[in-house]
Order: sequence, then C-alpha cells, then structure tokens
Amino acid sequence: MLHLDQLSQGAPRSTAVIGVDFGGTKIDVALASATGSILERLRLPTLAREGPDQALQRVAEVVRKLTAGAEEHGIAVVGHAAVCPGVVQDDRIQLAPNLPGWEDLAISRRLAQAFEVDSVPVWNDVRAGALAEALRGNLRGADPGLYLSLGTGIAAAITINGSVLAGAHHAAGEIGYVGIEMAPSSSTDRAPLEEVIGGKALGERASRLLGEDVDAEALFNRTDPEAQQILHHALGVLAAAVANFAVLIDPARVVVGGGMMASAAPLLAVLRAQLNRTVPFPPEVLAARFTEDASLHGAVTLALNAAERRPGPLRAALTH
Amino acid sequence: MLHLDQLSQGAPRSTAVIGVDFGGTKIDVALASATGSILERLRLPTLAREGPDQALQRVAEVVRKLTAGAEEHGIAVVGHAAVCPGVVQDDRIQLAPNLPGWEDLAISRRLAQAFEVDSVPVWNDVRAGALAEALRGNLRGADPGLYLSLGTGIAAAITINGSVLAGAHHAAGEIGYVGIEMAPSSSTDRAPLEEVIGGKALGERASRLLGEDVDAEALFNRTDPEAQQILHHALGVLAAAVANFAVLIDPARVVVGGGMMASAAPLLAVLRAQLNRTVPFPPEVLAARFTEDASLHGAVTLALNAAERRPGPLRAALTH
Repeated sequence: MLHLDQLSQGAPRSTAVIGVDFGGTKIDVALASATGSILERLRLPTLAREGPDQALQRVAEVVRKLTAGAEEHGIAVVGHAAVCPGVVQDDRIQLAPNLPGWEDLAISRRLAQAFEVDSVPVWNDVRAGALAEALRGNLRGADPGLYLSLGTGIAAAITINGSVLAGAHHAAGEIGYVGIEMAPSSSTDRAPLEEVIGGKALGERASRLLGEDVDAEALFNRTDPEAQQILHHALGVLAAAVANFAVLIDPARVVVGGGMMASAAPLLAVLRAQLNRTVPFPPEVLAARFTEDASLHGAVTLALNAAERRPGPLRAALTH
Repeated sequence: MLHLDQLSQGAPRSTAVIGVDFGGTKIDVALASATGSILERLRLPTLAREGPDQALQRVAEVVRKLTAGAEEHGIAVVGHAAVCPGVVQDDRIQLAPNLPGWEDLAISRRLAQAFEVDSVPVWNDVRAGALAEALRGNLRGADPGLYLSLGTGIAAAITINGSVLAGAHHAAGEIGYVGIEMAPSSSTDRAPLEEVIGGKALGERASRLLGEDVDAEALFNRTDPEAQQILHHALGVLAAAVANFAVLIDPARVVVGGGMMASAAPLLAVLRAQLNRTVPFPPEVLAARFTEDASLHGAVTLALNAAERRPGPLRAALTH
C-alpha cells in the first residue's frame, strides 16, 4: 500500500477514487490513486440481517472520513463506485441470497445520495473483477476474454475490447446455473454447476463421501485416491463446461480468479488439458492478476473508468 | 424480388451492393438495393473438387455481368462482400471440409483482385446471417442476441449492439464442437453436439435406429413413438446446450434459423420450455427473419454495412 504522504509529495494536485465492495459478511472500502493503487482501505461488518440502510449509512461515514483525509493531503476524490453480489439492476438486486432485504434496493441511487455525488455506478462483483482484469490485469489485449471466478460461488464474465458483457438483465456470467446434464431438466431454482464445483458444495460433498470434515481447500491438498477422485470429478465437470463456453465465444485467453486459486496449479492444469483436447482453437489459461481482493479492485477500476469518461480533473490528469 | 426497372424509376442515382454466398455445392450471387432487397440473383455450381481458382473466376464473371446490368439502369454498385463456411481468416479458411483445397485461400484479397475493388469483406456464413438478423431482422434491438443456425451443420453467433462476436480466431459460435458430456473428454477432432443434432447426423442415427431411410425432415414429421423418442432426445441435448449458453451470455432474445426451421414449431417449443425451466432470466425465442437464404442475406448485409462505413454514394444516399 502506498502512503498518502508519498502520493501527495509527487503530485500536488492528485486525484483519487473510492471503491466499495459489499459482501454478505463484510464491506471493504478503498481509496485508490489515479492508477488504481490502493492508498487506504477500511473494512466494516455488513450486518446483513439488519438490512441495507444501516450498512449504507456506515459506509457513507467511512467514505466521508477517507475523503477528508485525502483532501488534507491535497488529493481530490473524483469518483466513486461499488460492487456487490447478485444481479444488480437499477431498482433491485436479485439472486443475492446473502443480502436479505436488499432485493428492492436501488443501490446506485441510494449510494449517490449517501455520498452526495452525482452518480455511483454499481456492478456485480465478478463482472467488476473482470473489468479490472480487462483494463489493468491479465485480460488486457486478450479479445475476447473469458474471466472465471471460482470460490464459494462460481461465476464468469466475457470481456470484449475493454468492456464487460452485462447481458440483457445484468445476469451474464451466472454460470452456477449451468446444467451439467445435457438432457432436458425438470428442475428449477437449481444451480447445478455450482452444486458440483462451488467451494461450499464441494466441501460438503467431500465431507459426506469421505466421512470427515473436509473443506474445498483441504480437499485440494489431500493425496489419498478417494479425495483425489472427488476433486477430479468436480474439476472435470467444470473444465467441460468452460470448454463449451470457449467453443461458443472463442476467447483469446481464459483468466481464473477467486478463492479456489489458492490451489491454482491443479485447477489450471485440468482446465488447460480439457481446453487443448476439445476446443478447435484453444485459448491460453492464466491466473488472474487480482486473485486477492478481486472485487475491491473491481470497484476501484469501475470508479476510475467512470471518472475517466467524465470531463474533470482525473481525465485531465490522465490525458496530459 | 424487385425489378431493376422499378428501382431505377424511383431513384435516378440509385446504389446497390453485391453479396456472394459460397457453399460446398453451389454459389449464390445477389445484387441488392441499398435497403437490402434482392434485385437479381444467380446461382452457379461450386465444383468444389476443382479447387477455388475456377470458382472465383466464374463468380467474378457473374459479378461483372450484374454490375454492367445495374449500370445500364443507372444503378451504381458500391460494395461487395462474401460469405463461406468455416473459420475465415485473412490468409486461410479452416474447418470447412466441404471446400477442399480452399484451406490456404486468402479469399478476401483474392475476391478484391477478381472484382477489381478495394476490399471485399468475407465472413463465416452463419456469422453473416446473424449480422442480417441484428441489423435488418429479428435480433434488432435485442442486446445481446443469440443466433442459432440449425441445419446439416449447427452453429451460433452472439450479437452485441449491431455487431457480431467474431472470437479471437474468427471461430466464435462453432457450437458443433460443444461437448455433450460434462466430464473430461479424451476425444479430439470430434463435433459432439453436431453429431447429435446436426441434420445429417440426426437422419443417419434415425435411419440406423429405425431400420429404414429417414432424413431429419422426415423424422420431424413422424408420429410413431420410436421416431419421436429419437427426435426428442436430440432436441433435448440441443436445448440443454442452448440453455447453458443463455446462462452465460444472458441474451434478450434467441433467434433460430437454418434448414431445420422447416419444422419450426416443435423445435421452438422444446427450446422455449428448456430455457424457461433452467435460465434465471429466460430470453424470448423467435424464428429468424431470414430462414431462407440466410447466408446470402448475410453477404448482402455485410456488403451494405461495409459500404455504409465508407464515405461514398451509399452513405450519402442513406444519410440524406
């Protein structure tokens, strides 16, 4: 982390942005430089069960504090953005079970009011992570790119020429819902792929089959054949799904982030092998640049990107 | 079909374009108005086994004739484009087994020379069909859109804001290669999905299982349980794959073209049912506008689109 003092010495009229990452249990708020380096960060509990109002209020307080601190160092905060799980639409947030009571929240407008600014773009956290990779990370110059976020939940995003495909309902990339049997399905409200490879589901199934408590990370570290078989079945299903996506969109590169990248080597190896076997023009497979705090870097990138598109001090600073 | 006389009466300084659709057995060449209406069309055999040179030569002759005929009516030909099967790259055509000897053809440059014009954009035929739907058909205003071409071969295309995703190797949408088992595959050079639902493969399997000669179209018209079962298995696999694509890209609309649309009702019904059951935000499912001659309309649209982007008479005609 840079220090505000360093930054303000170098550039007397510096600019910065603020990014907010809303999660089911915690909220991270970052002040970042015009190049995306995080200068200060603060974490607060979401207290999700107590609804959105209190959370938004506490975040606004933190944003005021960060802004005041920046201004003391001659740094102007010129943009804000936020990310959260689920399908973020103008007047509601859908498919975000960890944020009960947020369904009818017009989060973007509410944050603009709370921060007393004109606009606060809010994106789905994975899609914002993909934007960070597309503009500042390992999907730069890879067109189109496929971003995978593999953790407790699983999701993807398609990047095209520095932007991210949102979908008609802001729901592109919710690949947890992908079916894993190529036959008509009668189930509804299921997330078949996530139930196989999502970190939580994987740990639960391994625990059940092995008769002992094993989380996904432990499973990756086990060398006994039973554990390896469970893991490889799940990775095989994931790899088959990713290969099918690669056939459809013909990406130049697949970049993988998320908590599961703590065990990057076997994950990337299985993906590479499957893509090379079955995709006519196999893409590269790389680890993401932002495997840690991907969502927070996503929020910062989104704030920078929005500020760059507005006339103002950041655009002036970046173009001169 | 309009007549040249009609067109030239209305607009003394009309413009037109020429689109060429290269297929494995035949080549269609169309002269089309500035709004995409086909004014004249000619068909010639590809004689694919005799290589590309003779085919290009004969096409160039037809283009000269059409151009001369248009000029006699005061119509200026202001753009040319072509489409062909396979993965069309600058210096080669890949995955087009019906065009042997065309692998190393720099088709775009060769056509520009043969037609004596600056440039002749050449696209994959299905992707051009998707462009026709995106700009002039049933994917207009649907963003993103998913186009399916279901016939002897099967393919797809993603449309975004009036353009079509090409992919890093111009191979996006070659969904015949999609795997139908969500498990690691050891096969290579296979097209699993096309082997189930491609019109040719479907007819072959039905013939084998039913012990009599049945092509895909006949299969759609059979009412006996054995035939229905074969058909519904294949449609079910297709629908499951399409649902997974819809989860990934969250299209506003899925539009279906190709020869299989001769039996549109059962096809669209199975797709709709599966999408509604398993996709969080189910897209509309509609027949394409250009179910006949989709590729030729694609070539015409590509020619129009290229001409519109160039300064010149067509752009002047369209913007004044």
